[in-house]
Amino acid sequence: MTLYVNLAELLGARIEQGLYRPGDRLPSVRALSLEHGVSLSTVQQAYRLLEDNGLVAPRPKSGYFVPQHRTLPALPAIGRPAQRPVDISQWEHVVELVRSSPNKDVVQLGRGMPDVTGPTLKPLLRSLAQLSRRQDMPGLYYDTISGTPALREQVARLMLDSGCTLSANDLVITTGCHEALSASIRAVCEPGDIVAVDSPSFHGAMQTLKGLGMKAMEIPTDPLTGISLEALELALEQWPIKLIQVTPTCNNPLGYVMPEARKRALLNLAQRFDVAILEDDVYGDLAYTYPRPRTIKSFDDDGRVLLCSSFSKTLAPGLRIGWVAPGRYLERVLHMKYIGTGSTATQPQLAIADFIESGHYQPHLRRMRSQYQRSRDQMIDWVTRYFPAGTRVSRPQGSFLLWVELPEQFDTLKLNRVLLEQGVQIAMGSIFSASGKYRNCLRMNYAAVPTPVIEAAVRKVGENAIRLLAEEANAG
Amino acid sequence: MTLYVNLAELLGARIEQGLYRPGDRLPSVRALSLEHGVSLSTVQQAYRLLEDNGLVAPRPKSGYFVPQHRTLPALPAIGRPAQRPVDISQWEHVVELVRSSPNKDVVQLGRGMPDVTGPTLKPLLRSLAQLSRRQDMPGLYYDTISGTPALREQVARLMLDSGCTLSANDLVITTGCHEALSASIRAVCEPGDIVAVDSPSFHGAMQTLKGLGMKAMEIPTDPLTGISLEALELALEQWPIKLIQVTPTCNNPLGYVMPEARKRALLNLAQRFDVAILEDDVYGDLAYTYPRPRTIKSFDDDGRVLLCSSFSKTLAPGLRIGWVAPGRYLERVLHMKYIGTGSTATQPQLAIADFIESGHYQPHLRRMRSQYQRSRDQMIDWVTRYFPAGTRVSRPQGSFLLWVELPEQFDTLKLNRVLLEQGVQIAMGSIFSASGKYRNCLRMNYAAVPTPVIEAAVRKVGENAIRLLAEEANAG
Repeated sequence: MTLYVNLAELLGARIEQGLYRPGDRLPSVRALSLEHGVSLSTVQQAYRLLEDNGLVAPRPKSGYFVPQHRTLPALPAIGRPAQRPVDISQWEHVVELVRSSPNKDVVQLGRGMPDVTGPTLKPLLRSLAQLSRRQDMPGLYYDTISGTPALREQVARLMLDSGCTLSANDLVITTGCHEALSASIRAVCEPGDIVAVDSPSFHGAMQTLKGLGMKAMEIPTDPLTGISLEALELALEQWPIKLIQVTPTCNNPLGYVMPEARKRALLNLAQRFDVAILEDDVYGDLAYTYPRPRTIKSFDDDGRVLLCSSFSKTLAPGLRIGWVAPGRYLERVLHMKYIGTGSTATQPQLAIADFIESGHYQPHLRRMRSQYQRSRDQMIDWVTRYFPAGTRVSRPQGSFLLWVELPEQFDTLKLNRVLLEQGVQIAMGSIFSASGKYRNCLRMNYAAVPTPVIEAAVRKVGENAIRLLAEEANAG
Repeated sequence: MTLYVNLAELLGARIEQGLYRPGDRLPSVRALSLEHGVSLSTVQQAYRLLEDNGLVAPRPKSGYFVPQHRTLPALPAIGRPAQRPVDISQWEHVVELVRSSPNKDVVQLGRGMPDVTGPTLKPLLRSLAQLSRRQDMPGLYYDTISGTPALREQVARLMLDSGCTLSANDLVITTGCHEALSASIRAVCEPGDIVAVDSPSFHGAMQTLKGLGMKAMEIPTDPLTGISLEALELALEQWPIKLIQVTPTCNNPLGYVMPEARKRALLNLAQRFDVAILEDDVYGDLAYTYPRPRTIKSFDDDGRVLLCSSFSKTLAPGLRIGWVAPGRYLERVLHMKYIGTGSTATQPQLAIADFIESGHYQPHLRRMRSQYQRSRDQMIDWVTRYFPAGTRVSRPQGSFLLWVELPEQFDTLKLNRVLLEQGVQIAMGSIFSASGKYRNCLRMNYAAVPTPVIEAAVRKVGENAIRLLAEEANAG
C-alpha cells in the first residue's frame, strides 16, 4: 500500500474511533509530515483521499476539520475470500433479481438502474422520435459490425476526459456493457481459465465467467482504495491467472475510486505477469469529482487493457448501447461480438450520437452527478438512523449504489424474502461473491430523488433487519 | 429418401434434360402411379413438390404441364463436404461482409437484408416514435431478462401458424436471431463438441461454433428437400454429435422448404440418438405458400428442439429483436442470454408488440411474400440471361436469397475483388462452408423491388464471371 493511503487509513481510523470529534481541527499538513516522516505532498494526498470519502472537510486558510453535521458509520470490513480459484454459484439469486421489471407496487432498490426521469434526457427522447420519422429510416438497417461511425467518434471524444486518446477505429459498439464484458472475456480466456476479480464484484461479470466455464479468484478489496495489490501479486505468483477483472472507478458495489497511483501499480503488475486487464468503467463518468478520474486504460501503453463501458448508467439502460476499447484484442473482440448478437441496433446509436454531438451529455452528467451525491448523503443518513447499531456502509465516490454490511451472523436471504412480501427489493450481498460470501451485506440503489416512499422503504429494510437480528439472538 | 421425393427428382431431371418441353402435358397421376408402383397420393405429393419448385404448373381439370414461359436453369449440385468434423475457417471473409454498412454507392446483394421501404412498415415507425414521447418513458428502463411479456404473448400467437402451441413463458426474447443461436448453442454444447449442420449453411451460426470452440460436421444437403437424412444418420452413428443445427424452412442460402415428412423423420433421428435440434426459423414466415410450413418444433414432444427466430427478416434487422423457444433448455438459455447481453432493449420490443397486436403483421407479411416471389422470378431470369452457360441456381420457396453455382473451377474470391471496385457486393459461397468449400458459388439478395440499377449490378456479376472464366480457359 502506498504511503498516503496508509496515512489516510490511520487518520480515518482515528476519526472513526472518536479521537477527533465533529468540528475538531485536524493536525496541520506540516505537523503530520514531521510526525510520520513523509513529504508534505503525501500528507496532502492523504487528506484529499479522506476528503473524497467525506471524513474531513477543508476550510480555506484554516486547514482540515472533522465535518460537523454527521458522524459516518464505519466502513465495511475488507472481505476474506477463499485464497484459491472457485467455481461460481449464485445464479438462482441473480436470476431472481434480473427477472424483475419496473413495477409500481415495488420500491426497487436492488437493481443498477439510474434515474431516467430528469429533464436533461428529453433531447435524447426527441432524437429517438425524430429518427423514426426520417424518410430514409436508418434505424431499420443492419449496422456495420463495429458500430455506427458517428457514435464511435463521439465516444472517442468522451474518453479524452478519462485520459484516453483513442480513435473511432479503436472502439467496438456493443449491446450494453454486458456484451462488452462478455465479448472481452471470451476474447482473452478459454474455458477453465482463472480470472482474478475484485471482491465484492459485479454479479453480471461473475455469472459471465460461470457461463463460459471459467473460475474466479476473488481478491480482498479495500472499501476505499480497491483491490489489494499485495494479495493480487501473491495470487499472480501462485496461479496461472489469464485476466484481471476490476471496476476501479466508482466501483460496483463498493463505490470507491481507486487512487491513480494504485491504478498505475495494477497495470505494472499486469505487465510484469503478462496478463490482460478488463477494466469495467460503466460508472466512471458518474464520479462526483470533476474532472472525472483517469482510467487504467489511459496509462496502457501495450494494449493489454480492455476497457468496457456503456450509456446504461449515464443515460438509460433500456437503450442497450455500450462499447469496448479492446486494445490488442480488437479483432478477437469483433469476432466475439459478431457471434454474440451480430451488429448493434442502429436507432439508439444514432440518437445517442446526436445527443452528445448537440452538447447535451455534459450538462446531463453534471445534473446527475450532483443529484446522486445529494441522494448518497440522504441514503447514508437513513441507514444510520434506521439500521441496526454496528451497521457499516460504503463511501461511494460516484454512481448511485450503497453497500451495507450488517453484523456477521446476519442473513440477507431471510431479509430479502420478508421484504419482497412488503414491496421492497434489495440486492443480496451473496450475489457479489463467486462463492456466496457477503451474506450479511446488501446493496441499495439511491439514484432516485429522495421521497417519503423511498424513506419508508429504507426504513422497512432497517426495521426488518433489527427484528430478524433480535429473533436470532433470542433463538440462540 | 422418401418415395415422393425420389419420384419428384426423377421427373424433375426428365424435365430439365428436355424430355418434356415447355408447354408439354406431363403424365397423369394415375399413369405415374402405375408406372412406378406407388400410390396416387405419392404421385400427387411429388407433383406438389415440383410445383413448389416451379418445374410444373397445374391446369384445372387438365393435369400438370411444363411451364411455357421459361426454362429454369439446373439446380445446384448436392455438396460433398468432408465426412468428418472440421474446425471452422472463413472469418476473414465474413468480417469483410459484416463490416459493410448501407452505402448508396454500392449495390449490396451480399447481405440478408429485407426490403424495409414498403408502406406496410409505417405503423411500426409510428409506434417507435410514439413510445419516445410517452411520459413514463418505458424504453429507458431495464426489461425483465426473458423479454417484455406483451411481446412474448404476441410471438406465442404468431407461432400458432407454424403449428406450435406455446405460451409466453416458453419464450425468451433476444437481441436478434444471432443471440438466440448463440445462447442456444452455448446452452447445449461445450467447447470441443461436434455440431452437425446442413451444408451450405448460414455463416453466422458457423462462426458462432468457431468462436465457441466447437467443430462442424457438414452434412450433404439436397437443394430441394434439405439435409440428407441418410448422411446424417451415418454421421450420428460414427461421431458423438451433440446438436443438429438446421434451417429447414426457407433455408439460407438454398431457399428450400424441407417437406413435412422429412422434418418429422429428422426429429425421429434426433430422438433415436438423443441429440438436440437447433431449428433456425428466421425466414420461416416468408415462405411463399400460405399457410406457412410447419416447424420441426411443432412436432417436438420432448422439448429437444430449440427454435430460434427473429423479426430481422420479416420486419427490420436494425431493431435487433429475436426470440428462442428453448424447450427443456429454457433455464440454461436464460443464463446464456443474461451473460451475453443482459436484458433486451425495451422500446423496439414494445413497438413490435403494438404492431402485431394492431393487426399490421399479417398484411405486411402478405405484401412482402408476394413482392419477394416476383423478385425471385425476375432475379432468376436475369441470372439465366447474364450468367455463364451452365450456371445453376436454387429454387427459393421463400425469403429473398438466391444461391448461384458457377462451373466447378470458378473462384468467387477473384470475382468479389473485381466487383467491389465496380460497386457491387455479393456473398461468396465459401463463407457458407465450415471448410471454405463452395468457392464456385455465390449468394445474391433479391429483396428489393427490381430496378434497372439492380439489373445492371446483376449483369456486372454475370459479365465479370464470363470474363474471368474465359481468362482462366485461355491461361489453362
